[in-house]
Amino acid sequence: MQFFKVKTVEETFALIDEKIGKITETEIRPLDEALHYILAEDVTAGENVPGFDRSTVDGYAVIARDTYGSSESMPGFLNVAGEVHMGEEAVKPVGRGEAIYVPTGGMLPPGSDSVLMIEHCEEIGGLLNTYKQIAPGENVIRKGEDIKAGEVLLSEGTRLRPQELGALAALGVYEVKVYRKLKAAYLSSGDEIVPFETKTLETGQIRDINYLTVKGLVNEWDIELIYGGITRDDYQEFAQRARELYEQADCLILSGGSSVGTKDYTTEVIQSLGDPGVFVHGISIKPGKPTILAVADGKPVIGLPGHPASAMIIFKLFGERVFRRLKGERIERKPERIFARIVKNIASSPGRSDYIRVRLEEKDGEWWAEPIIGKSGLITTLVKSNGIVEIVSEKEGISQGEYVPVILTR
Amino acid sequence: MQFFKVKTVEETFALIDEKIGKITETEIRPLDEALHYILAEDVTAGENVPGFDRSTVDGYAVIARDTYGSSESMPGFLNVAGEVHMGEEAVKPVGRGEAIYVPTGGMLPPGSDSVLMIEHCEEIGGLLNTYKQIAPGENVIRKGEDIKAGEVLLSEGTRLRPQELGALAALGVYEVKVYRKLKAAYLSSGDEIVPFETKTLETGQIRDINYLTVKGLVNEWDIELIYGGITRDDYQEFAQRARELYEQADCLILSGGSSVGTKDYTTEVIQSLGDPGVFVHGISIKPGKPTILAVADGKPVIGLPGHPASAMIIFKLFGERVFRRLKGERIERKPERIFARIVKNIASSPGRSDYIRVRLEEKDGEWWAEPIIGKSGLITTLVKSNGIVEIVSEKEGISQGEYVPVILTR
Repeated sequence: MQFFKVKTVEETFALIDEKIGKITETEIRPLDEALHYILAEDVTAGENVPGFDRSTVDGYAVIARDTYGSSESMPGFLNVAGEVHMGEEAVKPVGRGEAIYVPTGGMLPPGSDSVLMIEHCEEIGGLLNTYKQIAPGENVIRKGEDIKAGEVLLSEGTRLRPQELGALAALGVYEVKVYRKLKAAYLSSGDEIVPFETKTLETGQIRDINYLTVKGLVNEWDIELIYGGITRDDYQEFAQRARELYEQADCLILSGGSSVGTKDYTTEVIQSLGDPGVFVHGISIKPGKPTILAVADGKPVIGLPGHPASAMIIFKLFGERVFRRLKGERIERKPERIFARIVKNIASSPGRSDYIRVRLEEKDGEWWAEPIIGKSGLITTLVKSNGIVEIVSEKEGISQGEYVPVILTR
Repeated sequence: MQFFKVKTVEETFALIDEKIGKITETEIRPLDEALHYILAEDVTAGENVPGFDRSTVDGYAVIARDTYGSSESMPGFLNVAGEVHMGEEAVKPVGRGEAIYVPTGGMLPPGSDSVLMIEHCEEIGGLLNTYKQIAPGENVIRKGEDIKAGEVLLSEGTRLRPQELGALAALGVYEVKVYRKLKAAYLSSGDEIVPFETKTLETGQIRDINYLTVKGLVNEWDIELIYGGITRDDYQEFAQRARELYEQADCLILSGGSSVGTKDYTTEVIQSLGDPGVFVHGISIKPGKPTILAVADGKPVIGLPGHPASAMIIFKLFGERVFRRLKGERIERKPERIFARIVKNIASSPGRSDYIRVRLEEKDGEWWAEPIIGKSGLITTLVKSNGIVEIVSEKEGISQGEYVPVILTR
């Protein structure tokens, strides 16, 4: 058997980024069915947004200098020369000393350069009293000011949030080329594990809790999960079932069997799936040390620790990164961790990263993190928490009141 | 026409909580298909978790005081009296001076009270050298320590996150009573609005951008959206289409038509749907002032402002609250807002809440919020941002370096 040196959390993330690449298959999806998909190509604007100068308010299109000097006490006067209708081209121009009514979103008439809000003027019998002076460009969005024709609006690797969908719709992009949806497969192993639907347990048995937490997280990441059932602690059965699932999915998740017990076939089974195989076997982390990460012929394999609470923390931390890599998502710094103040001192061993379940409470415009009491194996500690404080491996602990990074588990 | 006083953001939230109640229909769902559903009843534990005393490590079950005085330099000695197998009941007891091997998760044999990790002992020919003294209860999770039979594990109104599903699975709860999934309907109005799939615009037209951002957000909240198309600025057509959609859905979302223009039928249409009707008509907020909130015979109706960027911010802010109320979700303080430091001074009018799009950047273990430059109507300001800073109505602005609440838009 091969021996592995335990990796730090930082080394583990670097190895994931190095070893796991994105899938290559793409698909064309209608824009309104593309939420959270990852763009597989750059999108270049084919037109200007807006396509014409638009008013951002209800008001009168004017030539700005015709309003100069206007005030509440000294109003100016302009002739109202017409009205722009929504959805119609504004053809009649605004001349010197003239104003044309424009609703919000309406097109600016030729000749005008700004819009005086209706709150700042008053129309009386075809004459507009102006109570405010405005600058050229005021209350107007210029043609192409939002998006310019020819610019790259979004680049390959962008995750499509609601706002990206909106911007693409503005451009007339009604379908997008994205990486296809991922499928993961889950296999549980262990003589003591029984299906979660089991009504009555025999002594020594436990239900397959990890299936529920893994499926929940995977579904939150917009990935489908294939349930592979539970195998006995038997190498042949385990290896065969793992192989079948591995072939159906983009990533295989193995639950249980990764402790240093005598029945640990997990590493061997993973190595049998393909090369280069295991690249992390043991992480200097609490909880979750006996974690395995591998790549077999390009497909990631994750071996979770057996404790449900540890398994969930490990999967949230490293599983999410594995799937973001696999999806083709550009990994940018985004607020995956917030910062909160810890309510009490917590000791930690240097060289090991600790993940402490906490309850976040707001106090005077700051988040305070209160550690949840209870052994790390208890699933209820996760139920009671809405965040996990990270104590990075260089630190020997954190002091009361210190700002600490917190991963949200809302 | 009825007149409405503009509401503050705080008043608007209070009114939503007061006026909008949860749906009453529930359904029974399999646990592995219940992610993000809201519990419709309390769940009481029918059994203890774990159901037996379990080891949390690979090691030897012992009587703690048999290890007292053991150290690296002065090891103690115990007789290895057997091994516990996973998934089987441990029947052979541990006597004084004895140790029995237990794998992680295995059942503690009768008589033992703690587990000595394999790292802290060594078995040589049936004799165990113990290098550490341990306390009673060490490395053991007691029967019922995670969840006690008879306790209320989760209460009505709880949103089922992956960890709640795991805890329910641990208990043998394989189906749950939850409030049924919601359906919202979306209707756009305005002579200038054309379907987002429109390839080439005529001058003055704009595509229905709000449909995409609204659908994206609604889907993120696990709600289905019925697309109702676009109606002309015609009262009869608008009212009829709104009525049809209102009858099919749990909540009606109207886009456009809420500015103070002459073509504003939105309020009238909403009032025609049922009583008590509009309860917010205009919010003292920037952007998004012309927002309408109503309840017609128990169903909420939301009238969004026309600017796509404003519409998205308003919908993110108030729409989410409306749907959480409707879903039956218990509204607790949870980190919906993080705190970041603002990179520059921003002025604001007291009495009005301002929402500033920002890009969050980490610097020295803190998030700093950099405002996105650009007029508030630009959809690209949302694309460039990953958060929205809230300046509450009492404030006259925020100063460089100040901690400010930020709503994440990741």
